[in-house]
Amino acid sequence: MEKRIDGRTVLLGLFGTPVKHSGSPAMYNYSFADKKINYAYLAFDIKAEEMATALDSMRLFGMRGANVTMPCKQKAAELVDKLSPAAKLVGAVNTIVNDNGILTGYNTDGAGYVQNLKHNGVDVKDKVITLIGAGGAGTAIAVQVALDGAKQINIFNPKDVFFQNAEKTAAKIMKSVPNCQVTVNDIQDKANLYQMIANSDIFGNATKVGMTPNIATTNIEDPSVFRPGLVVTDTVYSPDKTKMLQDAEKQGATVIGGRGMLIWQGAAAFQLYTGQEMPVDEVKALFFSKE
Amino acid sequence: MEKRIDGRTVLLGLFGTPVKHSGSPAMYNYSFADKKINYAYLAFDIKAEEMATALDSMRLFGMRGANVTMPCKQKAAELVDKLSPAAKLVGAVNTIVNDNGILTGYNTDGAGYVQNLKHNGVDVKDKVITLIGAGGAGTAIAVQVALDGAKQINIFNPKDVFFQNAEKTAAKIMKSVPNCQVTVNDIQDKANLYQMIANSDIFGNATKVGMTPNIATTNIEDPSVFRPGLVVTDTVYSPDKTKMLQDAEKQGATVIGGRGMLIWQGAAAFQLYTGQEMPVDEVKALFFSKE
Repeated sequence: MEKRIDGRTVLLGLFGTPVKHSGSPAMYNYSFADKKINYAYLAFDIKAEEMATALDSMRLFGMRGANVTMPCKQKAAELVDKLSPAAKLVGAVNTIVNDNGILTGYNTDGAGYVQNLKHNGVDVKDKVITLIGAGGAGTAIAVQVALDGAKQINIFNPKDVFFQNAEKTAAKIMKSVPNCQVTVNDIQDKANLYQMIANSDIFGNATKVGMTPNIATTNIEDPSVFRPGLVVTDTVYSPDKTKMLQDAEKQGATVIGGRGMLIWQGAAAFQLYTGQEMPVDEVKALFFSKE
Repeated sequence: MEKRIDGRTVLLGLFGTPVKHSGSPAMYNYSFADKKINYAYLAFDIKAEEMATALDSMRLFGMRGANVTMPCKQKAAELVDKLSPAAKLVGAVNTIVNDNGILTGYNTDGAGYVQNLKHNGVDVKDKVITLIGAGGAGTAIAVQVALDGAKQINIFNPKDVFFQNAEKTAAKIMKSVPNCQVTVNDIQDKANLYQMIANSDIFGNATKVGMTPNIATTNIEDPSVFRPGLVVTDTVYSPDKTKMLQDAEKQGATVIGGRGMLIWQGAAAFQLYTGQEMPVDEVKALFFSKE
């Protein structure tokens, strides 16, 4: 590295807390070096209330961009100069690009989901998609599949504060993408959930259920709802294949884990920073191989 | 480098303008990697009026430190939380260390001069030292040799604004280091200059006279003022040996060029950042070899 960083090296970063264990610096720095782009990417421990100063620092230091993670994504959406259509609908930003002091906020989480499906041979256009979870990941996915032409989206969540947010998001999506129908449903109504899954092309979990160490848990108690032809996805990436995906696979469904979404949201950010494609296969082999 | 920067890598930087051609990032990053210290050092183009925001950014990003160069050194001295004795007397900071949000300003330019002399077998303690030039470098040298025990310092400068500054610096030095006498003299009075050089142990140029491309110029028109036993130094480091040093060498004086001062001021900053010694010999061979 001592040969790579010079007086012209441009800084990028990750904003959020905690970030010290993040794999993003390794992934991006490898990719910048691979593409011979003179950028360096560091992680900065930033609280939501520090985001305004962080954005000032981005401008002052001529940073090319930053990824934003918990708990700063909503604050970033409030503070940037411009928002991409997806970031505006989601109300959260995971990627900021600095063009000569003008900061544009993007949300590539949903794009990561769609790209991952695409690279597994699945297109969301004209599809009926049922999602569990109306948090950050679920909202980003719902918005992006709508922008990418999904016909209908059914969101399931407990009747908490996220349920109300989901209703607002649904209204915003339908206003912005009139051809897309969005329903918001109580996850306690299992009969409705199973019926909607039965009528869907794609079903996705966007909650943390099934994540290490709780690997025996699943939102779908009755695996018989899964069938051949149904695409079942998970945003959980540890374990690589959750109990839900294992159950779905046994029923003959096509299953897609969360690891690819993580890589592809990074690749989408890389493209925004550099205009180039991230070396996804090498990144996958180096940084996302199973431990 | 892709393997060296991770989520825990701590940022350091260079503040000033212009900085894109600076060799500091290469020197420090090499040294951090060599010592297996998880720091990364980038150059940031900062104007003096942006220094307040730059210091906020240092605290927010948890930067370990920063070097400061033109035109930000005086502003840095005004803005930091604490000043080293040398930085306080000089009124300029070239190194800022961040200890959990408390920023201390140092000036290692003079220390670089003294260290360079020391590594050439010359001690400033109890010495009479005559210096030409009362700008940033000259002031830093005068202050440091005073702090390190010089008996008398004679500063020569044209009767401009720097002359008045030199008189103030001289008063501050004598108040702070009562055993050190400091005189400030008009450089037009050549008889006085030559007399003082004749009575000195060390004579130094701290102006830009002799610097590339004006390599035929020198402040000392009559080389017969140089003698065996006199130590003659230059802050100019390009060329490696100025006309003044060449003339002095021909008269049998001991000559010491400016390159070492540059390296040792960096080594002093490195020690402040890390508590460790910079690998000076390797740095010299890699980054300061003659082109």
